[in-house]
Amino acid sequence: MPQAGLIERLAPSLSAGAVLIGAEIGPRYYTDVAGRVGASPQVVFRPRSTAEVSRILAHCHAEAVPVVVQGGMTGLVCGALPRSNEIVVSLERMNRIEAIDVKAATAIVEAGAVLEMVQEQVETLGLSFPLDLGARGSCTIGGNIATNAGGNRVIRYGMMRELVLGLEVVLADGTVIENLRKYFKNNTGFDLKQYFIGSEGTLGVITRAVLRLFPLPAERAVACCSLSCFSNVITLLDLMRRRLGGELTAFEVMWHSYFVRATALPHVKPPLPADRTFYVIVEASGVDATNIRDRFESLLAQAHEAALIDNAVIAKSTAEAASIWRIRDATVEVHAAIRPAISLDVSLAIDRMEEFAASAEEAARAVDPQSCIVVFGHLGDGNLHVSVHHADDRPELGEELERRIYDLVAAYGGSISAEHGIGISKRPYLRHSRTEAEIALMRAIKRAVDPQGILNPGRIFEIDQ
Amino acid sequence: MPQAGLIERLAPSLSAGAVLIGAEIGPRYYTDVAGRVGASPQVVFRPRSTAEVSRILAHCHAEAVPVVVQGGMTGLVCGALPRSNEIVVSLERMNRIEAIDVKAATAIVEAGAVLEMVQEQVETLGLSFPLDLGARGSCTIGGNIATNAGGNRVIRYGMMRELVLGLEVVLADGTVIENLRKYFKNNTGFDLKQYFIGSEGTLGVITRAVLRLFPLPAERAVACCSLSCFSNVITLLDLMRRRLGGELTAFEVMWHSYFVRATALPHVKPPLPADRTFYVIVEASGVDATNIRDRFESLLAQAHEAALIDNAVIAKSTAEAASIWRIRDATVEVHAAIRPAISLDVSLAIDRMEEFAASAEEAARAVDPQSCIVVFGHLGDGNLHVSVHHADDRPELGEELERRIYDLVAAYGGSISAEHGIGISKRPYLRHSRTEAEIALMRAIKRAVDPQGILNPGRIFEIDQ
Repeated sequence: MPQAGLIERLAPSLSAGAVLIGAEIGPRYYTDVAGRVGASPQVVFRPRSTAEVSRILAHCHAEAVPVVVQGGMTGLVCGALPRSNEIVVSLERMNRIEAIDVKAATAIVEAGAVLEMVQEQVETLGLSFPLDLGARGSCTIGGNIATNAGGNRVIRYGMMRELVLGLEVVLADGTVIENLRKYFKNNTGFDLKQYFIGSEGTLGVITRAVLRLFPLPAERAVACCSLSCFSNVITLLDLMRRRLGGELTAFEVMWHSYFVRATALPHVKPPLPADRTFYVIVEASGVDATNIRDRFESLLAQAHEAALIDNAVIAKSTAEAASIWRIRDATVEVHAAIRPAISLDVSLAIDRMEEFAASAEEAARAVDPQSCIVVFGHLGDGNLHVSVHHADDRPELGEELERRIYDLVAAYGGSISAEHGIGISKRPYLRHSRTEAEIALMRAIKRAVDPQGILNPGRIFEIDQ
Repeated sequence: MPQAGLIERLAPSLSAGAVLIGAEIGPRYYTDVAGRVGASPQVVFRPRSTAEVSRILAHCHAEAVPVVVQGGMTGLVCGALPRSNEIVVSLERMNRIEAIDVKAATAIVEAGAVLEMVQEQVETLGLSFPLDLGARGSCTIGGNIATNAGGNRVIRYGMMRELVLGLEVVLADGTVIENLRKYFKNNTGFDLKQYFIGSEGTLGVITRAVLRLFPLPAERAVACCSLSCFSNVITLLDLMRRRLGGELTAFEVMWHSYFVRATALPHVKPPLPADRTFYVIVEASGVDATNIRDRFESLLAQAHEAALIDNAVIAKSTAEAASIWRIRDATVEVHAAIRPAISLDVSLAIDRMEEFAASAEEAARAVDPQSCIVVFGHLGDGNLHVSVHHADDRPELGEELERRIYDLVAAYGGSISAEHGIGISKRPYLRHSRTEAEIALMRAIKRAVDPQGILNPGRIFEIDQ
C-alpha cells in the first residue's frame, strides 16, 4: 500500500481534520445518490484551501497515486465513486461563499459550496443564480462545473458553462491555474476555464469559481398543462418561445408514464387528472411582474382556445408553484420506484422525440417483455430522460437494454449524454456520440495536462488504448 | 525555398483555382482592414473542401511549413497577416451556407461564409443570427469563431462562443475533427469545440460550423441618448437591464470624444447635438412589437423625467434606426481620422471606467502632450475601446503609449483584450492579463495538438520559450 507513506508525508502539512482513515471513512465517501457503492478508499483528504489541494496533488503526482475527486455525490454516471487503489479528495470543507459583488452581479465561491446555499444567499441581495436542478440541496458548485450541469432553466440561461466567468483549478502536478477575474469578455489567449468545465475532474481539481448572477425576477409564473398529442407540445413550445422570448425560463415535458408515477408519490399533489398523454410545466419569469403574469395567462388562454392544451393549472402562489415543480423534481424517487431500472439522458431533434420514445419502448419490450419505460425531459433543450424498468436485476439485462437504446440514439443522430456526463457508466457507449479522432484528441490533451494520469482515471475514457 | 516542392506535390490533388503564386497573389492576402501590411507570401492555397484543407495541412505538417489562416482580414491584432516564410490558407472559397434548419433553429455554414450573408439569409426564413459587428460585410464565420467575436449584442446573446453548437476543424496533421451535431446539450467527454473557439487559429483550421439561430424579433426599438455624467450612464444601464430583462439587446456608450468625430463623418447624421459628455445607443428587441415599443418609450420617458438622460431620439423607422447605428459602426473611419493612433480593447469593472478613461488620458498626455483620446464601447459587457492619437508615427511613441495604458489596465484589474484577441500586436502584453502558469498550460496544449508548431505560429505566444 503506497498510500501509507503518502499519508505520513502529507499529514503534517495539512490542517486539522484534513485526513480521514480507517473507520473515520463513512459510506458517504463511496456511495452515491442513486445508492451505488464504490470501493472503500484507504484515505480521504479534505483540504481546506487551494494550497492544501495543491500540496496533496503534487505528492500524488510524484508518487503516481490515483485520485478521485468528490463534491455532493449526486452524479449519475459513477464518476465520483472510488475505484480500488484510488484515494479520495473531497472538497466538502471548501464550501465558503467568499464574496458577492452586487454591482458586478458576480459571486466568488469555493468548489464545495452547495448549489442551494448559493441560490439562497444571492437571493437575499436581490440577485439570482439561475442554475437549478433536483439535487440542488446537496450538489456542489465544483461538481456542477466539472460536469457542466444543466437542469430546468437551460432554455433561458444556458448550462453551467455559460454561468462561469472565472475559475481556479489545481492541475495534477499541483500547479495552481488562477483566473478569477469578474469580466465576461476576455480574449487573451486560450479560454482555459473551458477545458475544465465538463471534463469530469480528469484535467484538474476545481477549487474556486466566479459565477454570473442575474437580477432576481419579480415574478415567476408557473403552470402545469395537459396535452393530447406531441405535435401540440411542440406547437406550445414554439408559441411560448416566440411570444415570451427571453422570459420563457422553463419548458419541461413529462410523458404520462412519468406524470402518473410522480403524482402518486406521497409528497406530490397532482394538479391535474392523469388522463392525458403529455404534461408540460412552463415557467415565465421577469422583472415586470404584472406584465409577465398578464402575458402568461393570456398566452395559456389562447393555447386553450386553440385546443393546443386540454387542461391547465396556473399557480396562484409561490407555494402552488413549488407544488407543481415538486412533480418534476421527483426524478430520483420515480426512478427508485421502478427499480430495477436503467436511466438514460439523451439529446435528440425535438420533432423526432415522440417517435424515439415509441421505438425505445418497442426495443425494450423486445429484450424484456415485462419492461416499461418512463419518459420526461427538458424539451426546449432537446433533452429527454428515459428510465427503463426491467423484470429482474441481472446486470446483463440492464446492459442489453442500454445497448439497444443507445444504438437507437445513434441511429437518430442523438447524443448519449445531454447533461449527466460519461463517467464510468456510459464509457462503453462513448463511440456512439464521438469519433475515434475526437477521442484521440481528448487523450492527447489528457496526456499533456495530466501526464501521470492520476486525476479521475478511467472516467470518460481509458488513457492507455 | 522548401515551398516550391510543396506546391508541386500538392497542386495535382487540389481543385482548379486552389493555388495562387507570384503575381496572382494580390495585396489582399497580406493587407488587413486597418491597412497594415505583412510579408508577401510565396503561395496562397484556397481550398474548396474540408478534404482539401486536410491534404494541404498534412503536407505542411510533414514538411514543417508554417501556415497562416485567413478569413475576411478584418482582425485588429495582425493575426492573419503573413510573416516571412508562411504560406497562406484562405477559406474564401469555402463560403457556402449549406443548410438552414428552421425547426431546429440552426444553420450549417462553411468557415469562409461572410457574416452579413448569413444574417441576411436566415432573416428571409424568419430567424436571426444575432452576432453583429461593424465588419459584418467582410468578416467570416470562421474568423468570428477563431477569435470568439463579440460585437453589439453580447449583452443579450453572448459572444460567438455561445452561438456555436457544432464545429468541424482540421488539425495540423490533417486529421479532421467533425462534430456538426445540432443539439445544444452534449456532455459526452471534453467539449472540443471550446478548444478551437477563440484560439486564433493556433490549434486547428475551422472548416464548418453549426450556428444557433433565434426567432427574428418583430421589433427593434433603437434610441440615442445624451447624458451629462457617467453615474447617469450606469444608472440608465441598470434601469434598462432590470426593466427590459432579456429584451435589452444593446447598450453602447460613446464618450463625447467619439461621438463628435463619428457624427462629423460625411455618411453619418448626428441625431442629437454634440453638447453632452456621454452618448448611449440602446436597443430593445423582442417578439411582441407593441409591447416592446410601449415599454421602451415609457422607460425612456421615465429616465428623462428623472433627469437621467438629457436628450433622446427614438428611431421611428428602420432607416432611422440604421442611421443611429451608423454612428457606432464608424469605428474604423474614426480611428483612421485620428491616425497616427493606437487602438485598445479592454475589459474593466463598469464603475471604474470613467476613472480609467481619465487616467488613460493623463497617462497619454504625460508621454505625448499632443495626444488625444477617443473612448467608446460595449458598456453592458464591461468592455471599452480606446483609441489614442499621437503626435507623429514613430513606432516608439505608439509602443510607449501602449505600455503605459496596458500598465494602467493591469492596475485596474482589467483584461488587455476583451474581444480583439492577442494575435501578434498584443503579445508583449499577454502577461498583463495571464499568469505564467496559464501561459505554460497554453503552450502544453499547443504542443500536444500541433507538435510541429505550423499553425499561425507566434500568434498569442511564441512556442519555444
